[in-house]
Amino acid sequence: MNAILEHPAKRPAIGKSNAMMRANVFHGPADIRVEEVARPHAGAGEAVIRITLTTICGTDIHILRGEYPVKPGLVIGHEPVGVIEELGEGVTGYKIGDRVLVGAITPCGQCRACLSAQWAQCGHGEGVEAIGGWRFGNTINGAQAEYLLVPNAQANLAKIPNELSDEQVVLLADIASTGFSGAESAKIKIGDTVVVFAQGPIGLCATAGAKLMGASFIISVESDPVRINMSKRMGADVVLDPHDKDLVMHVKKLTGGGADVGIEALGIQQTFENCLRCLRPGGTLSSLGVYSGKLQVPYDAFAAGIGDYKIVTTLCPGGKERMRRLMAMVQTKRFDPTPLLTHSFKLENIVEAYDLFGSRRDGVLKVTIRP
Amino acid sequence: MNAILEHPAKRPAIGKSNAMMRANVFHGPADIRVEEVARPHAGAGEAVIRITLTTICGTDIHILRGEYPVKPGLVIGHEPVGVIEELGEGVTGYKIGDRVLVGAITPCGQCRACLSAQWAQCGHGEGVEAIGGWRFGNTINGAQAEYLLVPNAQANLAKIPNELSDEQVVLLADIASTGFSGAESAKIKIGDTVVVFAQGPIGLCATAGAKLMGASFIISVESDPVRINMSKRMGADVVLDPHDKDLVMHVKKLTGGGADVGIEALGIQQTFENCLRCLRPGGTLSSLGVYSGKLQVPYDAFAAGIGDYKIVTTLCPGGKERMRRLMAMVQTKRFDPTPLLTHSFKLENIVEAYDLFGSRRDGVLKVTIRP
Amino acid sequence: MNAILEHPAKRPAIGKSNAMMRANVFHGPADIRVEEVARPHAGAGEAVIRITLTTICGTDIHILRGEYPVKPGLVIGHEPVGVIEELGEGVTGYKIGDRVLVGAITPCGQCRACLSAQWAQCGHGEGVEAIGGWRFGNTINGAQAEYLLVPNAQANLAKIPNELSDEQVVLLADIASTGFSGAESAKIKIGDTVVVFAQGPIGLCATAGAKLMGASFIISVESDPVRINMSKRMGADVVLDPHDKDLVMHVKKLTGGGADVGIEALGIQQTFENCLRCLRPGGTLSSLGVYSGKLQVPYDAFAAGIGDYKIVTTLCPGGKERMRRLMAMVQTKRFDPTPLLTHSFKLENIVEAYDLFGSRRDGVLKVTIRP
Amino acid sequence: MNAILEHPAKRPAIGKSNAMMRANVFHGPADIRVEEVARPHAGAGEAVIRITLTTICGTDIHILRGEYPVKPGLVIGHEPVGVIEELGEGVTGYKIGDRVLVGAITPCGQCRACLSAQWAQCGHGEGVEAIGGWRFGNTINGAQAEYLLVPNAQANLAKIPNELSDEQVVLLADIASTGFSGAESAKIKIGDTVVVFAQGPIGLCATAGAKLMGASFIISVESDPVRINMSKRMGADVVLDPHDKDLVMHVKKLTGGGADVGIEALGIQQTFENCLRCLRPGGTLSSLGVYSGKLQVPYDAFAAGIGDYKIVTTLCPGGKERMRRLMAMVQTKRFDPTPLLTHSFKLENIVEAYDLFGSRRDGVLKVTIRP
Repeated sequence: MNAILEHPAKRPAIGKSNAMMRANVFHGPADIRVEEVARPHAGAGEAVIRITLTTICGTDIHILRGEYPVKPGLVIGHEPVGVIEELGEGVTGYKIGDRVLVGAITPCGQCRACLSAQWAQCGHGEGVEAIGGWRFGNTINGAQAEYLLVPNAQANLAKIPNELSDEQVVLLADIASTGFSGAESAKIKIGDTVVVFAQGPIGLCATAGAKLMGASFIISVESDPVRINMSKRMGADVVLDPHDKDLVMHVKKLTGGGADVGIEALGIQQTFENCLRCLRPGGTLSSLGVYSGKLQVPYDAFAAGIGDYKIVTTLCPGGKERMRRLMAMVQTKRFDPTPLLTHSFKLENIVEAYDLFGSRRDGVLKVTIRP
Repeated sequence: MNAILEHPAKRPAIGKSNAMMRANVFHGPADIRVEEVARPHAGAGEAVIRITLTTICGTDIHILRGEYPVKPGLVIGHEPVGVIEELGEGVTGYKIGDRVLVGAITPCGQCRACLSAQWAQCGHGEGVEAIGGWRFGNTINGAQAEYLLVPNAQANLAKIPNELSDEQVVLLADIASTGFSGAESAKIKIGDTVVVFAQGPIGLCATAGAKLMGASFIISVESDPVRINMSKRMGADVVLDPHDKDLVMHVKKLTGGGADVGIEALGIQQTFENCLRCLRPGGTLSSLGVYSGKLQVPYDAFAAGIGDYKIVTTLCPGGKERMRRLMAMVQTKRFDPTPLLTHSFKLENIVEAYDLFGSRRDGVLKVTIRP
Repeated sequence: MNAILEHPAKRPAIGKSNAMMRANVFHGPADIRVEEVARPHAGAGEAVIRITLTTICGTDIHILRGEYPVKPGLVIGHEPVGVIEELGEGVTGYKIGDRVLVGAITPCGQCRACLSAQWAQCGHGEGVEAIGGWRFGNTINGAQAEYLLVPNAQANLAKIPNELSDEQVVLLADIASTGFSGAESAKIKIGDTVVVFAQGPIGLCATAGAKLMGASFIISVESDPVRINMSKRMGADVVLDPHDKDLVMHVKKLTGGGADVGIEALGIQQTFENCLRCLRPGGTLSSLGVYSGKLQVPYDAFAAGIGDYKIVTTLCPGGKERMRRLMAMVQTKRFDPTPLLTHSFKLENIVEAYDLFGSRRDGVLKVTIRP
Repeated sequence: MNAILEHPAKRPAIGKSNAMMRANVFHGPADIRVEEVARPHAGAGEAVIRITLTTICGTDIHILRGEYPVKPGLVIGHEPVGVIEELGEGVTGYKIGDRVLVGAITPCGQCRACLSAQWAQCGHGEGVEAIGGWRFGNTINGAQAEYLLVPNAQANLAKIPNELSDEQVVLLADIASTGFSGAESAKIKIGDTVVVFAQGPIGLCATAGAKLMGASFIISVESDPVRINMSKRMGADVVLDPHDKDLVMHVKKLTGGGADVGIEALGIQQTFENCLRCLRPGGTLSSLGVYSGKLQVPYDAFAAGIGDYKIVTTLCPGGKERMRRLMAMVQTKRFDPTPLLTHSFKLENIVEAYDLFGSRRDGVLKVTIRP
């Protein structure tokens, strides 16, 4: 008996097995192309979704520029919204056609890291050294395609409530989950003062997250006019200019001696260092940036190690429960990510979208990609 | 040399020493009277403030009714806003005339409980068994008077920012601090579902606190029309009727299997029990009510002890830092307590104010008292 | 092609498919019998282990007495040590013959509860209302048998280090995991005083857990001489008699005003109530008992709800990572559970073992069962 | 009436007012001298203790070498054990003659930092920018003297239980409090693996603290034979050589992929960096070292910021409650600091003691100084 015939409702018809799909393939630095590749099929514990909306992340720009290495031939992208097309053996509680959101990070739920509540550092099973749970568009094919294979589907398919549109949820997969986690990892309390460095999409969501957790006063640091406006909309009480030479002094004055929490959302030495300098003794630096090269912790800003400072770093929390919670926040209007979606492209025109997004021109914040 | 003359700037002129003041004195159940009593003076580590605004708390009603015993002759009231009139030796960083808010609970900051971060259970110094840090209008004279002696002044005088009025801060001393703490002790996270039982002033602030901490969905339980409206204004998404026989079922349905957090803000068996029944396994019941008699924990609602439930209780957090943080929330418009102030009385008419507040008529939520 | 033939290394020979095994079957109150039942086989995501050692839990006694209902025909027992016999599709990183320990609670790792770090309240997948993650010998066949089907094997098979014997690890599945969790859920800190009520196997492990977490002073409450001795061996500094009428006063005196933490390990009104009464204001009652009927929280012991008390309940933490951690503690000699194993029986004689264990005679603490 | 005469039991006889005492005075780099200085007297809220035992800290060596600047003329030393000689106004619950331990850090308990539970960053009252709560031998006269003025005495005098000797408690003031805090700030859990870099007195206490909190496996890194032996005595399972070129690899192998927690107890680039490299993803670096110059966080060891790493720093927790808890640990034999006291000197010979302690010869770990 044929394994495929055993599950006629779940598996594709045989004729579909060799079907192709359109996808954005990385061929090398500065070389991405939308082309035909083999369409994936779901093995045990897996699912395939038909992508209805995705986006481009800053990390994808790093990949395109050759700054973050992935293997040529990989389909990139890691923010998938779609419809279930195939369900592998052992995946229960879903049916073909369900609309789902999948987080950028796809924890297995069953390895040492996951069972230690560190899902973002999932090691994908027994015996594999954990190196961060990011797989889509990094170690396996990603979301800028017509179809996407979702590993560990039981832990990662988050059903989208009917009243939410694809546009309302697509940024939850990475941007909002990461941004919010900057506030969450800092354990912001009611009444805390917070300074957020850089107001790109993740920084903007960190600002929103700080507001959602009860910060009494939020200072953001940004110079781009579009982002300054969006920052205020997302919750910043004051926006300061990163080029201000007295920036640290101004933050200390506005916060009565230093912020309780600083969130770094850019990933360069200057913002990291200034973020640390803006803290009161005992404060927390929550770092979301992806750094390159050596990072320096200045002796004085660090109080020589005796200032009771904390530095916490967070990769994007994933998994279906995280996505469910974030969608609940959109559903009850606590948070609206749609103003960040400034431009829209078809998958066929994704190279153009990368160009716009990478250049930051035309007030672009995030682009949507529709296969 | 006379000790008083040593600190001419801080101590009252000798002629003032025997001055009297008007105060609301408890003489026994159903017997409070505004009368002349000796005006207090500040010893070492103490301060005297001239009260500019105070209020009546539900606990004061319990005192008046003889349900909570205090000694006859006591000036009652524990929510003081005022101006510094005298500063005792050793109190630094303040000057006569500073506008200050003092929390209902006045931790010393230096006993075992305080140095264990349990300021609300302050034992007021060495060797005293801690029995809760509430002193004003309980074990020492309180705030419904022209002047108030503030013990441990260094830890308890919170300067009021110029832009905030007395009305904007008076409810922070107890009502808002207690209500918010119901949300804080439950460790509400972004995306949590919360149910709040009873929407009196404290319950309303618990609702506001849950919203401030990032709850995705807040259900309150209340039947009074004025309070139902205020509940929605404070952040409730849905208000359910406590008399609804399927209340628990409705909460479970609305929250997809049970609330993450339940806040009890009344203090009776029925609300405690229903609050527990509304939780999902692993949920937290945060109790703010003051109970009388035996409290029962039903076997089934408690999952026989194996549901990973938590029950946390919280007395009002006090101290100047708590007050500073709450004032910061009002200053940046995160929270506005003034809609709760429905009626205003002069100290001379406080008996009338007790009558109105105790009867809950005329849509009263909180009254202000002005000496 | 036959599915079984696809995995020759993992699946049993066809001839084994209808094989039978010996198991302890519950037929009704006071009626358990060792008899032949069908041997289980592993489906996708599952494993079958050949049991090499197991034990009887107090909960099994409740089942036998009809106090905890399970369906007749069920194989009971939930503390399995064994050798992998079959591995279902999708389970990776293991091989047939691996020695493994499986926790009493078997989280799936992929449902809402598990992805919220509440593995003990696992709902076993999508759409099932979580009612506690205990399945072995409760909702599916258990460990008092020659073979055991392990669901969600990837999350639950914990390899046993070579240097550890079966006897060294069998009590980690439930007794030690539960007992330690009583200390862990109370968040015991270096220097805390702790009182543990009842020194049965779980209470003894709670005592050991309190010591392991840095409690400065541990009082246990027990009257049985064998358990008193074992309590001291596990870490109690003082053992008090539960019949002492001044028990609470003695605890308060020994702890300088009340214990920081009380652990309840019996599950009756008296111990729960005394445990609460022994706490200092702001203390934590960590409850491990399984209660029946209504539980009362006395008004005075609870400080009417304003003592900042916490009551936390914990079901046994499970999953392979928990088991790995507990085995590491045994491996480095931080904890030795073997003194609790007082008697040993063959599976054929398990009825006799239940009789001994249920009667608490002959100094029995825990019995081992060997199929 | 004279204020001094008002408190005859508490204040010194007038004749004593101009009394002198012997003290170790810092005059400049490489220049400390035991000489006569004015004996202190207690003002309001203060106390004077007669020192019966003190010690020399590594920080004092930095002062002596001119690496940590303090003002010439200062009496140095910050680890005081003594007997109460004078009690200022407002200090209650103590009497002259009480034996007391005072922590190296002396929180006021009443400022913003203290009321935020960050006692080590105490700002000493209103309006002072917090720069760390270390005052003895830093900003005010210290403990290497016959008498010591204790500020904020109510929060800082910890009575020594009769059964404990001065030698048993002197190291709790700083060394043990700091060392333990390295484990505490890392939130070590039962079953964690821990690596501790450097086994000087603080590192040794960090090792002891990790053991006390339930670490399953502790690796220390040290090359000095005396300290290697002491490390094992304090709880290390394995001691590795810091000069081992494959040190990180060995730690990763011994811990199955990286330690859960790394504690840095030296304060140099190499140990900080190696400590970070030894962690598993999601691990915590708890830093106790006092660094000089720029500290670098290597890109790879930090996983570019996306490894969910935490870096926490901790200054020594002080205050009487901390001291009470640590003394309780010694009293019940959880921890014995006396093996670290390798040499003893009279105050008159303290220059010799500095020489020995600074040179690390003769197997010195800590020296006692007796006035």
